[in-house]
Amino acid sequence: MAGKVFFSVSMSLDGFIAPEGWKSAKRMDAPGVQRGMGQWMELHQWVFPLRFFRENLKFGEGGEEGRDNDIARETFERTGASVMGKGMFDLGEQSWPEDAPFHTPVFVVTHEKRAPWERPGATTFHFVNDGIEPALHQARQAAGDRDVRIAGGGATILEYLNAGLIDEFTIALSPVLLGAGIRLFEGVDAGRVALEPVRADPSQRVTHLTYAVRKR
Amino acid sequence: MAGKVFFSVSMSLDGFIAPEGWKSAKRMDAPGVQRGMGQWMELHQWVFPLRFFRENLKFGEGGEEGRDNDIARETFERTGASVMGKGMFDLGEQSWPEDAPFHTPVFVVTHEKRAPWERPGATTFHFVNDGIEPALHQARQAAGDRDVRIAGGGATILEYLNAGLIDEFTIALSPVLLGAGIRLFEGVDAGRVALEPVRADPSQRVTHLTYAVRKR
Repeated sequence: MAGKVFFSVSMSLDGFIAPEGWKSAKRMDAPGVQRGMGQWMELHQWVFPLRFFRENLKFGEGGEEGRDNDIARETFERTGASVMGKGMFDLGEQSWPEDAPFHTPVFVVTHEKRAPWERPGATTFHFVNDGIEPALHQARQAAGDRDVRIAGGGATILEYLNAGLIDEFTIALSPVLLGAGIRLFEGVDAGRVALEPVRADPSQRVTHLTYAVRKR
Repeated sequence: MAGKVFFSVSMSLDGFIAPEGWKSAKRMDAPGVQRGMGQWMELHQWVFPLRFFRENLKFGEGGEEGRDNDIARETFERTGASVMGKGMFDLGEQSWPEDAPFHTPVFVVTHEKRAPWERPGATTFHFVNDGIEPALHQARQAAGDRDVRIAGGGATILEYLNAGLIDEFTIALSPVLLGAGIRLFEGVDAGRVALEPVRADPSQRVTHLTYAVRKR
């Protein structure tokens, strides 16, 4: 039996998971993406010093251990397959290293027909053309008894949340205000989604908040 | 010398501090206010069972003790004077008990000229007509060595935050999504306001997050 379906993102205190210029951006060298890079770095600043981050991207030895590192590693290790939207894939395709950082099957929800794209290090991207539920179904089967991560972007996460397909999620709440950008919960069906606090785990840099999703 | 200038609010995980129908509402019996009452109760549900809340509103004996109660009491006790906007005052005037729950001087930023309004229990409302800085100045003087609380609403808090007049703030992050309403940080000057995490304090019902405000 498959495990849970979850997402895990870094969010600013004012609710953004990406800077303004990242909305509908298709290329990493788009001016809006480049302009927002500083904010994106701030949002994720808790990740870059971690030992796990360095290992996973083959940046070499060293890096910080501790609660943040454990959480990043646990999130990776629980994940048996990921699902992502086409927007996230398009930007990632231009920025992930050849040895992409997933090391599991990844199911991309897209209208584009494309053969599976296999990367060194056991990441294979599968392109699913019939919507979010079939993509999740395939991911569950690929994940075995591990969990399925809805990797992003925001619109894809929200589709799954509103469809009642998310079991739980974790937010790394960053001590930063972006003022504008892509809001995690923009368009959430608040009349339908209820939350139950599972865990709150403050670290030096962020607060890790985990909620279970219930129907109202 | 006066203490710190702070605010303390309950915020939904999607960033709202009041329901949609409370925007620019002048009366508690406005349909939008009544329609949003359930969401407002959910947002503040951590407060109602507390011993301190019952005591302060003279609801009688009993109520829960523990971390939430201590935090509510500490927030009250550190406050030597409050500042609020006219919108919050208008709604409060119709809903606070005669013995209003501040028990200190309160400075209302408003264009309305009105003599001080003294309530039983040591709450006196002073109406300040020359803007947020003079209101804060008067509140600081009244507070002595205790702190000044910017009580609300959201627009008033944001004016003080963007003006660089807030030293720190605490958010009780509620496990609820509103989907729409009054956003705490709508219009924040993100290029100017930097945050430094001070404390994160998870309780059973909410996560209490305290940040110091710095200039960028």
